Amino acid sequence: MTVQRVSMITLGVADLDAARGFYERWGWQVRQATPQIVFFQMGTLVLGLFPLPALAEDQGRADAVATLGMGGVTLAQNYATEHEVDERFQAAIAAGATHLKAPTAAPWGGYSGYFADPDGHVWELAVNPYWELGDDGATHIPEDLPAQ
Amino acid sequence: MTVQRVSMITLGVADLDAARGFYERWGWQVRQATPQIVFFQMGTLVLGLFPLPALAEDQGRADAVATLGMGGVTLAQNYATEHEVDERFQAAIAAGATHLKAPTAAPWGGYSGYFADPDGHVWELAVNPYWELGDDGATHIPEDLPAQ
Repeated sequence: MTVQRVSMITLGVADLDAARGFYERWGWQVRQATPQIVFFQMGTLVLGLFPLPALAEDQGRADAVATLGMGGVTLAQNYATEHEVDERFQAAIAAGATHLKAPTAAPWGGYSGYFADPDGHVWELAVNPYWELGDDGATHIPEDLPAQ
Repeated sequence: MTVQRVSMITLGVADLDAARGFYERWGWQVRQATPQIVFFQMGTLVLGLFPLPALAEDQGRADAVATLGMGGVTLAQNYATEHEVDERFQAAIAAGATHLKAPTAAPWGGYSGYFADPDGHVWELAVNPYWELGDDGATHIPEDLPAQ
């Protein structure tokens, strides 16, 4: 059966404690942690921090650690207001993120900024006026947009 | 306000039509598409396919396309049974995925396999007996696990 879902996102990190520290400084709460992995509950999915060598080994390519990259994937958090985007962006920078692109009006009609976490994982903070943002954070593409 | 959520995952791709074709062959249905971007509704979040040069430009680093990498992030789909993992893994290979690690019993007590999509984005298909998997695909870490 075809299932369109993402259950967990795993971010490979160079230093587990350092990576955890960044996300905690940004305001997140750890749901479960062991010396090997750290989990955050993210609404209906889970985000994990996992040391890069362990991630590469888990992927069945322990010899590929050096060539695992970041940046070709972005993770977005949508907010209701530009003020929230600005505030959370500044909080990320204050927590140790690398500034990539200041939040600004986007050509597609929204509002968006980018930063990289200490391992190079790229986050976008955005307002998307065309998508539905539930009180629980759920993001839905409206039904009245054309599907192709 | 701190918000722990992921609203959208964007996968940078070399060829938008080719990437879309892979996911459609794997069984997904496009929710919305333009010549510039393709969106899939994934439960309460959205997954987008976006050409790598456009992604790099959107991140404010148009000169970094060549150095954007994949593999340091994995996306997981959890299933209730090993049979479902095996079936969906084979379907992905049949759709053009690269075999990284055949589904097998995992040292952490679950069942897991890895493949890479045609752009190198890494998916894990897994059974995790310790986590709750709702009928709607929602993934939750049980409340009775220790939070640290």
